[in-house]
Amino acid sequence: FNFGGIRSLQQPLLSKKMNRVIKSENSAAAAHESAGRQRIAIGEQVSDWGETTEDEAVSDISDKLGVLLAEMGEEEDAFAQNLDEYRTVLKHIRDTEGSVQPTRDQRAKISDEIQRVKLKDPNSHKIGTLEQELVRAEAQNLVAEAQLVNVTRQRFKEAYSIHLAAVIERSEKQALLAHHGRRLLNCIDDTSVVPGDEARAYMHGAEAKRIIEQAEQDIRSWRIQMEPV
Amino acid sequence: FNFGGIRSLQQPLLSKKMNRVIKSENSAAAAHESAGRQRIAIGEQVSDWGETTEDEAVSDISDKLGVLLAEMGEEEDAFAQNLDEYRTVLKHIRDTEGSVQPTRDQRAKISDEIQRVKLKDPNSHKIGTLEQELVRAEAQNLVAEAQLVNVTRQRFKEAYSIHLAAVIERSEKQALLAHHGRRLLNCIDDTSVVPGDEARAYMHGAEAKRIIEQAEQDIRSWRIQMEPV
Repeated sequence: FNFGGIRSLQQPLLSKKMNRVIKSENSAAAAHESAGRQRIAIGEQVSDWGETTEDEAVSDISDKLGVLLAEMGEEEDAFAQNLDEYRTVLKHIRDTEGSVQPTRDQRAKISDEIQRVKLKDPNSHKIGTLEQELVRAEAQNLVAEAQLVNVTRQRFKEAYSIHLAAVIERSEKQALLAHHGRRLLNCIDDTSVVPGDEARAYMHGAEAKRIIEQAEQDIRSWRIQMEPV
Repeated sequence: FNFGGIRSLQQPLLSKKMNRVIKSENSAAAAHESAGRQRIAIGEQVSDWGETTEDEAVSDISDKLGVLLAEMGEEEDAFAQNLDEYRTVLKHIRDTEGSVQPTRDQRAKISDEIQRVKLKDPNSHKIGTLEQELVRAEAQNLVAEAQLVNVTRQRFKEAYSIHLAAVIERSEKQALLAHHGRRLLNCIDDTSVVPGDEARAYMHGAEAKRIIEQAEQDIRSWRIQMEPV
């Protein structure tokens, strides 16, 4: 075994930090996915509960609200999928960072070797060869560093452009659904009844239907508007 | 032991269904809380990574973007807290549902008893007493049913008013932060460099600073605008 073996297994600092971001985003995406699935289930459960109340108003509105909640869940789930796409772009940065480090190491190693040989024998015939090697290593490293700058800047912008567009899409669609949801709630007349009152007729069925149709149409016709990146 | 003991442990169907909603919302809130905490951590990690790139533009923008991401995480966490508040209101419905069932059972039990006694002995002196008991049980149940209708409608509206307002607050604030985030990204010049180019001066520091200040101010001055419920 040799000590170099362990060291080469370690990720360079730079790609290690990006790797941490990628891993945390994986957990965040999983949390959003779980929240989305729960929200879809809750939509059904609320509708199911409302039916059992045998109160026409509550039954109708809880059923329609359930549809809006389930749709919010679908948006949450779509957001989690978009986070995966963004993570893929971050991986390009991490991989490039990982590939630049060896060119830095190689350059430093030849440079060190030249110093070592010069100290031992300033006239050594090895020095010429090593200096040629150093020029080649420097050129290779120079290309790698330019690639790193380009990939980092371009992919960073691309990654967060995807991420932030996904935040905007989820947010605006969920807010839109929530605004319609509040209009739905107002279709329930909650002025108090007294014991023995006849069941109050439910008058807002047609209005509730229009609200839910409007919500569907708004989601379908929604288009993202944002600063181009 | 007796068989009735088991039955009385079971929740009536109605409160059981609401209880399922309450439990699912607990999981959903936990998922949003976890997503929020991850997002706050990612904000720091992105800033930390950017510093290591030693690219002035990437370092500055990733640091400022990290601030926006962390703020999105704070909003996600506040949303999870609001879900807890809404769950508390749903519990009032569940508890009322649970307390109405015994009055229904009591009424049905006395009614059955009258039928049983009448079949056995139509002139039984017990019938008069049982009929008085039935009138009392009916009155009690009538009050309970009116309470159930009132609590269900009022608390249902209250609960989802809180829930939907929380969705709107989280969504609109996160969208606002994301829009500013996209403006930040445009402060990075990502036109390609060639090997050996001198490091390009970072020209957009002042602009990035203005964007982040504007984002802070927009969050502070944000007010909810929505359909009153």
